[in-house]
Amino acid sequence: MAIFLALQSPEVEVIGLTTIYGNVYTTLATRNALHLLEIAGRQDIPVAEGSHVTITKGTKLRIADFVHGADGLGNQNFPPPKGKPIEQSAASFLIQQANLHPGKVTVVALGPLTNIALAIEQDPEFPKKIGQIVILGGAFSVNGNVNPAAEANIFGDPDSADIVFTSGADILAVGINVTHQVVMTDADRDKLSQSSGKYAQYLCKILDVYFSYHHDSYHTKGVYLHDPTALLAAVNPSLLTYIEGVVRVQTNGIMRGLTIFYNTKKKFGEVSEWCNKPTVKVAVTVDAPAVVELIMERLMNS
Amino acid sequence: MAIFLALQSPEVEVIGLTTIYGNVYTTLATRNALHLLEIAGRQDIPVAEGSHVTITKGTKLRIADFVHGADGLGNQNFPPPKGKPIEQSAASFLIQQANLHPGKVTVVALGPLTNIALAIEQDPEFPKKIGQIVILGGAFSVNGNVNPAAEANIFGDPDSADIVFTSGADILAVGINVTHQVVMTDADRDKLSQSSGKYAQYLCKILDVYFSYHHDSYHTKGVYLHDPTALLAAVNPSLLTYIEGVVRVQTNGIMRGLTIFYNTKKKFGEVSEWCNKPTVKVAVTVDAPAVVELIMERLMNS
Repeated sequence: MAIFLALQSPEVEVIGLTTIYGNVYTTLATRNALHLLEIAGRQDIPVAEGSHVTITKGTKLRIADFVHGADGLGNQNFPPPKGKPIEQSAASFLIQQANLHPGKVTVVALGPLTNIALAIEQDPEFPKKIGQIVILGGAFSVNGNVNPAAEANIFGDPDSADIVFTSGADILAVGINVTHQVVMTDADRDKLSQSSGKYAQYLCKILDVYFSYHHDSYHTKGVYLHDPTALLAAVNPSLLTYIEGVVRVQTNGIMRGLTIFYNTKKKFGEVSEWCNKPTVKVAVTVDAPAVVELIMERLMNS
Repeated sequence: MAIFLALQSPEVEVIGLTTIYGNVYTTLATRNALHLLEIAGRQDIPVAEGSHVTITKGTKLRIADFVHGADGLGNQNFPPPKGKPIEQSAASFLIQQANLHPGKVTVVALGPLTNIALAIEQDPEFPKKIGQIVILGGAFSVNGNVNPAAEANIFGDPDSADIVFTSGADILAVGINVTHQVVMTDADRDKLSQSSGKYAQYLCKILDVYFSYHHDSYHTKGVYLHDPTALLAAVNPSLLTYIEGVVRVQTNGIMRGLTIFYNTKKKFGEVSEWCNKPTVKVAVTVDAPAVVELIMERLMNS
């Protein structure tokens, strides 16, 4: 949904997709990215395959295949894509694009942050050269969605997340404290299904699993629009408000994947792991009706 | 202040003080407990000395001596107390009292939770036999006061805190999210200093360091009444509201000492460390003006 929304947003030029594990393994994410670009008729956009493993080798991947089905696309048995990913890795592609267009490239990071952490490791200047990184991730002052501590994208690779959050890049984090406010209701979905737009038609097919998951797990009559909200945060920052401070990620123990925000105003007697780290922006409010309306409008307009 | 408040509360019979490290080492805390009972003329109350170390041997103690001065009593050079602690350890004393008065003993835990965790280790039935345990500790949905993650009392012994929170005892946690709302202003202190009550007079002397600490560190014109608020929560629960759920404590990493509350309503796809654990009560609101008024009234009435 976020990819189609990007393609439908006149403010945005999509210069590439990078893939990562999360709801499916990376190999399948790559296949799905190519497939979606074929659905959109946008095979001109390169797909760079991301890391197959977390940055700390040996960590077992968490693949949340119960969210969007085993194929990540609502178990629709789509045919394999004709296209192929580019030869470059996602991290190399990110570095290359940042070098080509310094300060102009926005990364909308909708999964675990391994590729971006690898880009930072491979090129320490990357944080200064990349434009804004909008991170869909974290649970700020609320419970997570993997467990009470952790949100799924950060939980997927907490070590990478901590590298990215403390890298000095221009970061806006959009956590579930914000995206849980943005809901596509069953009624919205009916409206989508009545649209003749190709994206609307396609999405209505693959959304069954996602709606069922919300009905069963959250008892909500609707689904959270996590990824589209993060995409729109990149397109139109005025849809959200944010606070600024230092974010660190717990990388081990029972709260692995937890994000803790510190506004840098409160003083402590002792030096802490939040001291002398670059600040990031963390979204705190969202104009949810406006976001849902914009998503619906753009997805039906094709 | 909390000890004097307990002695001045007609609802409460103080059956003993147990000591623990925190703002001073345990040895000095014991000496101070004896001293305070002598000031109050209540040498009939036993003092049981607590643990000198955290439950996980080898952990370096954090002694926050900058809060109340090196002596823990505002650097007043009081003479040593005449009394002595009882032979029993704090943990044994707690177990004994719980056995003597099953379900009737309230523990107001104003420091790290080592003694209570030891009581639980020594007598697995302790959580069922003790009455309510009011814990001054935790930072729920807010930053800590040791660092952005951790509140001081939990940080003092996170392993013990996790044992106590998951023990099944009847627990009410009063965190800094609540106690930071209860402030004794400079004006309140002037009022206290004009009282002829012996507790008011004594406290005004020892509070200098605590007020200076707040002025310098927090830039507040007043001091947080952490401990007295927890004491009053035990005396009159209607001064607070609370929510009920499972609390776990992070015991390692950069968020060591962090408390995470889970209300048990939200469902997760995977089993978590919060599953199948007993619930506790966590204070969320406090009638701060009523608490301050009650504290002032009782401390001046002597």
